[in-house]
Amino acid sequence: MPLHDPQALQDLAAAQAHWEGTTLKKTLDRMPEQRARFMTQSSEEIDRLYTPLDVTEFDYLRDLGFPGEYPFTRGIHATGHRGRLWTMRMFAGFGTAEETNARYKYLLEQGNMGLSVAFDLATLMGYDTDAPAALGEFGKCGVAVSSLLDMELLFDGIPLDQVSTSMTINSPAAILWAFYIAAAEKQGVPMEALRGTLQNDILKEYIAQKEYIFPPSPSMRLVTDTIAFGTEHLPQWNTISVSGYHIREAGSTASQELAFTLADGLEYVRWGVARGLDIDSFAPRISFFFNVHNDFFEEIAKLRAARRIWAREMRETFGAKDPRSWLMRFHCQTAGVSLTAQQPEVNLVRVAIQALAAVIGGAQSLHTNSMDEALALPSEKAVTLALRTQQVIAEETGVINTIDPLGGSYFVEALTNQTEWQVYEVFRRIESLGGVIPALEAGYFQGEIADASYRHQRELDLNQRAIVGVNKFAADDAVSIPILEMDPQGYDRQCARLARLRLERDGERASASLDALRRACLGEDNTMPFLLDCARAYCTLGEIVDVLREVFGIYHEPVQI
Amino acid sequence: MPLHDPQALQDLAAAQAHWEGTTLKKTLDRMPEQRARFMTQSSEEIDRLYTPLDVTEFDYLRDLGFPGEYPFTRGIHATGHRGRLWTMRMFAGFGTAEETNARYKYLLEQGNMGLSVAFDLATLMGYDTDAPAALGEFGKCGVAVSSLLDMELLFDGIPLDQVSTSMTINSPAAILWAFYIAAAEKQGVPMEALRGTLQNDILKEYIAQKEYIFPPSPSMRLVTDTIAFGTEHLPQWNTISVSGYHIREAGSTASQELAFTLADGLEYVRWGVARGLDIDSFAPRISFFFNVHNDFFEEIAKLRAARRIWAREMRETFGAKDPRSWLMRFHCQTAGVSLTAQQPEVNLVRVAIQALAAVIGGAQSLHTNSMDEALALPSEKAVTLALRTQQVIAEETGVINTIDPLGGSYFVEALTNQTEWQVYEVFRRIESLGGVIPALEAGYFQGEIADASYRHQRELDLNQRAIVGVNKFAADDAVSIPILEMDPQGYDRQCARLARLRLERDGERASASLDALRRACLGEDNTMPFLLDCARAYCTLGEIVDVLREVFGIYHEPVQI
Repeated sequence: MPLHDPQALQDLAAAQAHWEGTTLKKTLDRMPEQRARFMTQSSEEIDRLYTPLDVTEFDYLRDLGFPGEYPFTRGIHATGHRGRLWTMRMFAGFGTAEETNARYKYLLEQGNMGLSVAFDLATLMGYDTDAPAALGEFGKCGVAVSSLLDMELLFDGIPLDQVSTSMTINSPAAILWAFYIAAAEKQGVPMEALRGTLQNDILKEYIAQKEYIFPPSPSMRLVTDTIAFGTEHLPQWNTISVSGYHIREAGSTASQELAFTLADGLEYVRWGVARGLDIDSFAPRISFFFNVHNDFFEEIAKLRAARRIWAREMRETFGAKDPRSWLMRFHCQTAGVSLTAQQPEVNLVRVAIQALAAVIGGAQSLHTNSMDEALALPSEKAVTLALRTQQVIAEETGVINTIDPLGGSYFVEALTNQTEWQVYEVFRRIESLGGVIPALEAGYFQGEIADASYRHQRELDLNQRAIVGVNKFAADDAVSIPILEMDPQGYDRQCARLARLRLERDGERASASLDALRRACLGEDNTMPFLLDCARAYCTLGEIVDVLREVFGIYHEPVQI
Repeated sequence: MPLHDPQALQDLAAAQAHWEGTTLKKTLDRMPEQRARFMTQSSEEIDRLYTPLDVTEFDYLRDLGFPGEYPFTRGIHATGHRGRLWTMRMFAGFGTAEETNARYKYLLEQGNMGLSVAFDLATLMGYDTDAPAALGEFGKCGVAVSSLLDMELLFDGIPLDQVSTSMTINSPAAILWAFYIAAAEKQGVPMEALRGTLQNDILKEYIAQKEYIFPPSPSMRLVTDTIAFGTEHLPQWNTISVSGYHIREAGSTASQELAFTLADGLEYVRWGVARGLDIDSFAPRISFFFNVHNDFFEEIAKLRAARRIWAREMRETFGAKDPRSWLMRFHCQTAGVSLTAQQPEVNLVRVAIQALAAVIGGAQSLHTNSMDEALALPSEKAVTLALRTQQVIAEETGVINTIDPLGGSYFVEALTNQTEWQVYEVFRRIESLGGVIPALEAGYFQGEIADASYRHQRELDLNQRAIVGVNKFAADDAVSIPILEMDPQGYDRQCARLARLRLERDGERASASLDALRRACLGEDNTMPFLLDCARAYCTLGEIVDVLREVFGIYHEPVQI
């Protein structure tokens, strides 16, 4: 039942009307506000004041409940961050596997709690480093991993039964996962013991990030194969991390990010169910990945709404019975697009406030961007400061002392409700287009993001919003921060390693495993065991992707008119 | 009337008890929390979860009301920061008046909105730069101002009718104010047009900062003289800035900072009333100055409670009639003691989160510490980054879009209430000791601060709390940030200037004005007009203080047993 006494609300409404007609009016007559319209990062208009009148329908037990209980608005753990801190998980990777391995060891020494692999663009697109199509992309936005051998080097000296590893890879996700599982086997670690997350979210590639290879249907089959395989063999692995991050980076609003991501998540659930899996067998291993952008309260409201909607959909719409299927776990990353190349130390401030929102919003895992990421790959110093940012929040700010500290705030509850309504608006629109895949084939998501992005740029151009150091308080000082230099011999060493691998491996075994994979792809078997055999036989990423491309074809985005 | 329906609260209590016995119990059985006790920066224990049951007595209209209306919990302006941003006011001063003048001009170019003068220790203690007692203190913690001449140089080229200036000076506050007023006269700006703030809070010097010269009674007379003079002649000047900052830096808790500061503020009001002033003639020009420390929510709650208590005391206890007497305006500064010499860039993170709390708490004015302040005087780069921190909060985070965004949060409202109760506890204790001056003579404040400071240090020593880079995540890298170098000739130039001034001024006029001041001090006249005459005659700070010291005597802190 609503918590507020109707008579008290009526008295309040009268008092508020009186305030508006007197004190507020006098103030506005004397001094108008600085802008006609105050809006969030996502261009949502925000009211001057929120009171209980903005949450009159609010029902504590229905809308918030208790942490660790449905609908999980206040968090998924009954003890919040008091029981366990979020995992400080710095996304890292550059150059060769050896260089990145050294960075991982450094990060673990500095207090980083979980690994997170950034792959280079060639790897993300399924090419070996020495492929002509990969030329010029080696090691730039991540580490190059062309075979099990590189994966072994990447985790050399890091016991894979003792860390959790996140891998940001999508179209070839199943293949890199196979490399990882095989690398663990080499360490003597059985796959049952592995903990980590595979991004493996191909839908948002079509929507925003555009790093797809195959068409949606076979791509979804690969995702579903990993879900089924993980459910059976890797009970501690998150087989998918449904990602809003890239949707937001592409220019969406906060509520679009949430709506599109949730829609994608529900689509994966549908495919899993269609495969014949019991929803409660795999839903608990679906995780999420959100952006935390500049607008402090908008982001917190988004994360609170995210948990409530997912819980409701899983329980009410999909009929999941296990409470672990209802609860949404998520990783956050601070907003890369918010960083400026100008005055890069100011990015430390942006990242700190974004990270604070992620923590207050109840993140399970967090990457904080380095201040130099708008300029280069993060230097050791910059990445350490980014990690220290999380440590200061955890140790010094007191925000972990209590769970969901903003619960009850008229503004935050109203904004949480508003975000939720906007998400359901988008759900209805997607449904009217026939579902997620028809909607993306019709260009719906891409169009929505383009519109939001255009509106934002226009607001900047018209000085309706400001970015410090860019269109306000700009300085023309030369940037003077140290920049990371990669090993200049890395590319040659990596190509030589690949050439040697192809010579020295058991070529017949490699060919046979690729043939077996081809047959599996043509049929309906789960591809994962075949991919694992290819990995173990030191087939390269490019060779495996060639087989899949041959069977599945490639995707071309429909031209939007 | 209370907002919450009693039946709904009863249902909630039953549900919460059920949660505690089931979900929470299961979680705690499986995994205990990381610490037995979660506490704020001030060692206050914080509950795991706050719900409407923690604010059952809450009455919106009584406890919060509307911004710009009694009791001002939600802020003093009906339009909050939408109407007017806080004043970004960077505290600055070092070396000579010329060097500091250049820094002020630089800061104004960077977007600083108000000036704030840091004086050096010699000036704060009433000594001329060339006095033997001042040796070694020149220009270190602020600028040296030994006469009107230095004040003229300090504001050379800065039109004093167009800026607002805060001056952090206490025992000799009236004298430096006289220099400022006289410097404005030289620019052709009448005193009526001056806007700014004099710290002028001598009580907290006895309590915490220890930069006093005269005993409490004549010191309070000087303060009361400035209040009376300002009330008559400088209607836009805040004649006192009652300061908790130094009390907090000395080691007090948040609620002690607030309680001691409010008690001091009320004491000044009592002295003004005893002088025969109408409370509504001077109370609107009393301002406050608080620390914003690490604990995000504790600080926000403190600032909200501050406004509510001051409003109630001014209206209910002192019977002020003018709403402008009820409302508390305050400046904030981020916590100097929270900065670490180790890994100084991490201070950017601390300062960002502290500043965010100040803004959400409704500050009218804010200084953000520079990251290098634990090492040296702030460099130009460091101070620019500190200012950019405020600009990012204002322009990019969206927290100014709505007023008092945390209003209604169960946790923040409960913490605001708790802070208020603790303040009244302290008020009762002060009253039982006979009032503020007897209490400070009895060493009450000093003892309370020492106890709190000891407890905090012990918690650090026992690793019950951590400071990143100090007792956790320490690194032994050498610090490599550029450090400000002062003009090495500054001291000699300043001493030569003083010597020339004493030779070249009208010596008879100087002597006569000092004699007139002496007579005024011995009598009951307001000293301000006499101080102004001394300033205009180019009497030096040291000469004026000598007269006051001769008449008023000096203060020795009672030995605490």
